[in-house]
Amino acid sequence: MLRCARDTNNLIVMSRALRQFLFSPQSVAIVGQSDDAAKTAGRPLKYLRQAGYAGRIYPVNPRRKEVLGEPAYPSLSALPEVPEHVYIVTPTEAAMEAVAECGTLGVRVATVLANGFAEAGLEGEAREARLRDICARTGLRIIGPSSLGIVDLRSKAMLTANAAFDEPDLPAGRFLVASHSGSMIGALLSRGKARGIGFAGLVSVGNEADLSLGEICGATLDDPGIDGYILFLETLRHADTLRRFALAAAAAGKPVLAYKLGRSEAARELAVSHTGALAGEDDVAGAFLAGCGIARVDTLDGLIEGSPLLTRLPPVAPGARKPAVAVVTTTAGGATMVVDPLASCGVDIKAPHVETLARLRAATGINVAPARLIDLTVAGAQYAVMKAALDVLLDAPEYDLIVVVVGSSARFLPERAVQPIIDCAQAAKPVAAFLVPDAPQALAALGASGVPNFRTPEACADVVAATLRRRVPRALPLWPGNRVRPSAGPDVNQSRPSTSQTRRSPQDVDARHKAGHDEDAGRVLDELEAYELLDRLGIARAPAVAVDVGTARAPTLPFPYPVAVKTLVADIPHKTEAGGVELDVRDGDALLAAIARIAANIGRRGRDLERVLVQPMIAGLGEVLVGYRVDRDVGPLVMLAAGGVLAEIYRDRALRLAPVDLVTAQEMIAEVRGLAALAGYRNRPAGDLDELARTTVALSQLAAGNQSVAEAEINPLMVLAPGQGVVAVDALVRLR
Amino acid sequence: MLRCARDTNNLIVMSRALRQFLFSPQSVAIVGQSDDAAKTAGRPLKYLRQAGYAGRIYPVNPRRKEVLGEPAYPSLSALPEVPEHVYIVTPTEAAMEAVAECGTLGVRVATVLANGFAEAGLEGEAREARLRDICARTGLRIIGPSSLGIVDLRSKAMLTANAAFDEPDLPAGRFLVASHSGSMIGALLSRGKARGIGFAGLVSVGNEADLSLGEICGATLDDPGIDGYILFLETLRHADTLRRFALAAAAAGKPVLAYKLGRSEAARELAVSHTGALAGEDDVAGAFLAGCGIARVDTLDGLIEGSPLLTRLPPVAPGARKPAVAVVTTTAGGATMVVDPLASCGVDIKAPHVETLARLRAATGINVAPARLIDLTVAGAQYAVMKAALDVLLDAPEYDLIVVVVGSSARFLPERAVQPIIDCAQAAKPVAAFLVPDAPQALAALGASGVPNFRTPEACADVVAATLRRRVPRALPLWPGNRVRPSAGPDVNQSRPSTSQTRRSPQDVDARHKAGHDEDAGRVLDELEAYELLDRLGIARAPAVAVDVGTARAPTLPFPYPVAVKTLVADIPHKTEAGGVELDVRDGDALLAAIARIAANIGRRGRDLERVLVQPMIAGLGEVLVGYRVDRDVGPLVMLAAGGVLAEIYRDRALRLAPVDLVTAQEMIAEVRGLAALAGYRNRPAGDLDELARTTVALSQLAAGNQSVAEAEINPLMVLAPGQGVVAVDALVRLR
Repeated sequence: MLRCARDTNNLIVMSRALRQFLFSPQSVAIVGQSDDAAKTAGRPLKYLRQAGYAGRIYPVNPRRKEVLGEPAYPSLSALPEVPEHVYIVTPTEAAMEAVAECGTLGVRVATVLANGFAEAGLEGEAREARLRDICARTGLRIIGPSSLGIVDLRSKAMLTANAAFDEPDLPAGRFLVASHSGSMIGALLSRGKARGIGFAGLVSVGNEADLSLGEICGATLDDPGIDGYILFLETLRHADTLRRFALAAAAAGKPVLAYKLGRSEAARELAVSHTGALAGEDDVAGAFLAGCGIARVDTLDGLIEGSPLLTRLPPVAPGARKPAVAVVTTTAGGATMVVDPLASCGVDIKAPHVETLARLRAATGINVAPARLIDLTVAGAQYAVMKAALDVLLDAPEYDLIVVVVGSSARFLPERAVQPIIDCAQAAKPVAAFLVPDAPQALAALGASGVPNFRTPEACADVVAATLRRRVPRALPLWPGNRVRPSAGPDVNQSRPSTSQTRRSPQDVDARHKAGHDEDAGRVLDELEAYELLDRLGIARAPAVAVDVGTARAPTLPFPYPVAVKTLVADIPHKTEAGGVELDVRDGDALLAAIARIAANIGRRGRDLERVLVQPMIAGLGEVLVGYRVDRDVGPLVMLAAGGVLAEIYRDRALRLAPVDLVTAQEMIAEVRGLAALAGYRNRPAGDLDELARTTVALSQLAAGNQSVAEAEINPLMVLAPGQGVVAVDALVRLR
Repeated sequence: MLRCARDTNNLIVMSRALRQFLFSPQSVAIVGQSDDAAKTAGRPLKYLRQAGYAGRIYPVNPRRKEVLGEPAYPSLSALPEVPEHVYIVTPTEAAMEAVAECGTLGVRVATVLANGFAEAGLEGEAREARLRDICARTGLRIIGPSSLGIVDLRSKAMLTANAAFDEPDLPAGRFLVASHSGSMIGALLSRGKARGIGFAGLVSVGNEADLSLGEICGATLDDPGIDGYILFLETLRHADTLRRFALAAAAAGKPVLAYKLGRSEAARELAVSHTGALAGEDDVAGAFLAGCGIARVDTLDGLIEGSPLLTRLPPVAPGARKPAVAVVTTTAGGATMVVDPLASCGVDIKAPHVETLARLRAATGINVAPARLIDLTVAGAQYAVMKAALDVLLDAPEYDLIVVVVGSSARFLPERAVQPIIDCAQAAKPVAAFLVPDAPQALAALGASGVPNFRTPEACADVVAATLRRRVPRALPLWPGNRVRPSAGPDVNQSRPSTSQTRRSPQDVDARHKAGHDEDAGRVLDELEAYELLDRLGIARAPAVAVDVGTARAPTLPFPYPVAVKTLVADIPHKTEAGGVELDVRDGDALLAAIARIAANIGRRGRDLERVLVQPMIAGLGEVLVGYRVDRDVGPLVMLAAGGVLAEIYRDRALRLAPVDLVTAQEMIAEVRGLAALAGYRNRPAGDLDELARTTVALSQLAAGNQSVAEAEINPLMVLAPGQGVVAVDALVRLR
C-alpha cells in the first residue's frame, strides 16, 4: 500500500502547479470507472483513450479486474503512484470515501461527479462541510461536487462524464470555458465545433465546495496558451474570487466573456432550487460583472461567437470617449436587423463625418447617403466597392469598429463582398461580419482569418454591445478581501488561513436570497444621527431640530414655517404609515397640535415618543433616491434612482460597485431614464445634476472608510435648480 | 406582332387566377435577361432551368439573338404568346417601357426588379405614379418595383435575381414567405434549407406600388398547399390590405408569423431612408399585428423555426384562460436559458398541480420537486423516465404546451431523451424541443416528425411567447375599408373602384412619419365641447362652468371651493405653459384675481380671452391618461397610460385597435406597469380599475360611430377609490 507523507510545506501549492494538476496532469485515476462505456461512469476512460491522452491512466473499480479492456485497480491506495488528478464518478457515499482516501494519500486534485451535496438539504450540506474539512486538513483541492468534469483539449485530459464529448478530433482553441452548469460544457464544446471554434479547455465547476470558478480560472492566468475566458454563470457565489480573477485577467489583457442566468425572477427561483446556487437581483449581477471588466452577453450564440471580437477591442479606459460603430452593408433590410437591437442597446452607430462621406463617395463611385447605415446596395455586391468602402472606414477616426452586413451574395459569391472583409482582417481596427443568408463557407473563411463573425443578427448585436460596454475595471478594494473571510480550502494563490466555520448555513443562504442583502445587520440610526453621517460625508441636508414631545409652547425655530414634523426614533422606518409624519405645518400652534397627534399615533403602537424632528418644507424640481448598501455577494454598492412609486415599479435605477468617481456618477445619472425629467425633458426646468453626481460620489465613499455602515438611503433627495444643489430631506442608515 | 384585345370584363381577375399568374404561370418572359449568368440580370433564366420549371420561358433581349444558349426575343410583342408573368430585370427607364408594353399587350402580372422609384425622390415617385396609371388603365398587376422576385418552389417558377437561389433541390414546404426586403428571401430560403425547412414560395414585394404584401398573400388563401405565412416587414404601409388578409387567414385557420423591423428609433430612421417605406411607432405596429392575430417574433431564427409550433397551437379565443407551459428537462442550467426569457416575456410557466406531481413521481420514480422547472436531471437521460414524464404532462389539464430541454445526451444518444419526444409527436397537445448541445441528427429527426424544435434558447422562448400571445383577431371595422380610399390597381379580390389621385405625396409621407398620426386634421374643441363629447360617451368628468372674463363679481358656483380655473379657448392646448391655469383657488375674490391674471397672460399672447372654465379641485388616488386617435397607418387606436412625466419617459402604455371590449380594456390595465400603483402595490390604496376599464371601452367607442373625431385625450383622468369611479378633469378633442 502506498502512502504519501504529508509535507506541510507543500500545503501551499503554487498556482502553476495547481494549473498542471487541474489541466495537464501526468497521471489520472478514475474512481468508479465502469466497464460499460454507455454508462455515465464508463465515459471518462473511453474519452481519454479516444482523445489520445498521453499521461498514465488508472481506472479504479473494486468489483472488476478489467474495465473497457484495461486492468482495473481495487482502490486508490493500490495504485503504483499517487495520481495527480483523481476523477471520482461513484455515487455520493462512495465518493465521500474516495475523497477521504485522496486526502490521506496526498492527492493534489480530485474532481467529484456525485450530487447529493449542498443542493440536497441539510444532510448534503453536512457532506459538503466534510469535504471542505478534508481539504483544509490535507491540502487536497476539489472541483465539485456535482462537477461533470474538467477537460483540457491540448493535453487531452478528458476528465468528464458529459455525453457530448464522445468523439475524437475536438478542436482546441485559446479560450477557457468555466461553467456552473455541467451540461453547458457539452453544449459549448459541440456548438463551438459546429462553427469551427475550439477551446483550450472546459470546466464544470459544480457546487464550488472548495475550488471556486474564479480560483480555477485564476490558476490559468499565466498559461500562455490561454487568451481569455468564457463563463457560464448561474450565481455570484464566491464573487470575491471571481472578482480577483477578473481584475488579474484584465491586467493581463485577457478578456472575460460571461453569460449569466437570472434575468427574470422566475429564473432566479429556479437557480435557487436546482443547485443551491444563489442568484441575486439581476442588476446587481450586471453592476458586478461590469465592475469586473467582464463583458456580459445575453445570447448563447453570443457567448460562443464573442471571443474573437473581444480579443480585438480593448476595454474602454476611464474618461475615453464612447466607442462608435460604422455599419456598412449590401442589404439595408438585413443590416437593419443588426442596427435595431444595437440601437436598442444604446450603441453609438455613427453616420460618417462629412470628410469620410466625401471619401466614401469618391472611393466607391456611389452617392452614399449621409445616414447611419452606410448602404452600398445600389452597387450590388462588388469586391472593389466594398473594399474601397472598408479602406475609407478603417481610416476614419470617428469609428472604433466596422460591422459589415453582407446579403445574398455571401452564399455562393463570397469573393464579391466577403473577401474584402477578409482582406481587411489585419487592419488595426476590427471589422466584424454578419452574413444574412446561410453561408457556411464564407463564415469558415472569415473565422479562419480571425474576422469576428456571427450567425444571427441578435448575437452580432449582443456581442458588439457587450464588447463596447466593457470598461477597464476600477481598482476598488476587493470584497471581502479587506476583512477576514477565509475561503474553504488552502488558497493556492493567496495563502490565506483557512477554516470552514464561517461558511453560511443553508438557512443563512435562504434568508440572504429573500432579503437580497444583509438585513440581519446592526442598529438603525435615528434621523438626526443619520444626518450627522451625511454631514461628515459633505452631503447637504435639510436643517433639522429635535423638539421634546412634552414641550408646552412652540419652540423658536432656526428656519421659517411651514415645516415638516417627524417621529425621531430609529426603529420605526416607515414613519408615514405609522402616522409619524405631518407636512406643511404652518405655525407654532399647528406645530404643537401636530406633535400631539404624532405622539398619540405612536403611543397607539405602545411606544413612548420622546422627541420629534422638525424641518423646513423644501420643494425641489424633483426627487431622487441615492442609496448605498453592502451586498453580501458583491460588497459595497451605490444606487441612484428616480423618486416616487413609478420609478420603483419600473425598477429604474443605476447600480455600481462603490466607491465611484465623478465620471461614473455622471454615467449613472445618464443611465436612469426617469432622471431625464430633471435634464430638461420637454422644456421642463433642469435640476442641479452636477451636485447630484457629487452627492452620489460622496455617499459611495462609505465603501472607502471603515465600512461600519451596512446601508444608507437618502430618499428623497430634493434636486434644486442648477447652482442651488441638492438637499437630503430624509435618510435611513443601518450599521453593520 | 401579337396584341391582345383589352377585355374590360377581364379587369377583375379573380383571386385564383391571380394566384396562378403570380405563382404558377404557364409561361414567363424575362425582359432584360443577360447572357452572363454571373450578372444579376443573368440569373432568372439560369434558376428556372436549374430548378426544372416546366412552363414556357421567353428570354427577351433586343441586343442578342441568344442568351445562355437559348434563343432570345427582341421584345415582348415579338413573343408567340402573351406570357402570363413577365419578370423585368432591366434598369429603370427600360423597365418603365417594358411595363408599358406589358400593359398594352394584356400581360396579367409583371414583376419589376429596377429601383429608382418611390425611394428615389420626386422623380421616382412620378415614375411609380406612371406604373399605377398603367395598371389602372390596363388591368396589369405589378409586383415591385425594387422586387428581387417571386418564387414558387412547387411550380419551380424561380422568377428571382437573388444570388442565394443559385442551386437545384431547394426544399418545398407549406408556408409562404413575403418580405419587404429582397435580400431576406435569400436569407430565409438558405437558412431554412440548412435546417431542412422549405417554403411553398417566397415573394420580395418591393415598393408595393401596385400589389401590396397583403394582396399577394391574400391571393393564395385558397391554395391547399399553403398552411400559413411568414412575413418580413419593414413597414405597415398598406395596413388595410395586410389586415384584410390576416383576418381572412385567421378565419381559414392559416397562421401568420411576422418579424417587423423598427424596434428602435434608429432602425425606424433607416427604414424611412432606404426604401421610402414607413415605420411608425413600434408599439403601434405591435398593437396592429396583435389585433390582426399575427404572431410577432423578435429573432430571425424564430421567424424561420416558428411555423411548426404556430401550426400546432390555435390562437387564444376571447375570454379563454391564459395558456400555460410545462418546462421539463434533463439539464436545469440549459433549461433555465429558456425559462429566463420566457418568464421575462410574461409566459405562464406553471409548476405541476399536486395530482400531476404525484403522477409524475409515480411514473418516473423520481422525487420530482414541486417547482416550475420539472427537472429530471437526477435520473440522467433515460427513455423510460422522459417518456413517462411526457405522458403525464400531456394528460395534465393545466398545460397547453410542453417544452422539453434536453442536455448533452441529445448529441450522440438521442434515443434516450429525444426519442420520447418524437414518440409524443402525434399527441393532441404540442411538445416543443430545445436541445442544448449541437445535435443536428436529433434536430432532423424532430423536424421530420413535425416536432417544433429550436436551435437557440432565445428563438425557443421567442416563438413560444409569440405563439401563446396570439389571439383570435376581433372583427373590427376594417381601416380604411369603411371609407372610400381606393387601392392603386384594380383590386382582384374586392373589385373596388380604382384611382391613383388619393395616393399620398412624398411630403405627406414625410409629415406622417414625423407626426406619427394625423395632425393635419380639423378643429380642436374647447374644453366644454370636449366634455359634451365625454358626456355623450358616458364618461364621468368634473363639473365645470364657463365664467365670463369681464364679470365684476364672483359667480355663484354649483360646487364648493377650492376650484381650478382654466382658459376656455380651443387653440391653446398647452394651457399651463401659457399661464392659462390656476389651481386651488380658495374663494370668490381669489377666483376674480385668478381670472384677471389668466386673461392678462393670454392677452400678452395677443389673444382676447372671453371665458374661463371653473371646476372643483378633484383629488384622486392616481392619474391616468386615456387616449383615442386615428392612426393614419392602422386606423383607430385606444391608448391607456399611467399619468405623469415618468410614465411618458418610460413610454409605459398599452395600445389596441379600437373599439375594445371590457376584457381587452382589463388586459390593457394589466399591461401598463405603472398602473400597479393603483392596484394595491405595496399596500397603497387601490383605485377603481373597473371603472377605468369601462371608461377605456367608452372612449374607444369613438371608433364605432361616424368617426368624426381624429384624436381625444383625457389627461388626467383621476382614479378614485373602488366604487367611486373615475373623473376626467381635462380633455383635448380634435375633429377630423
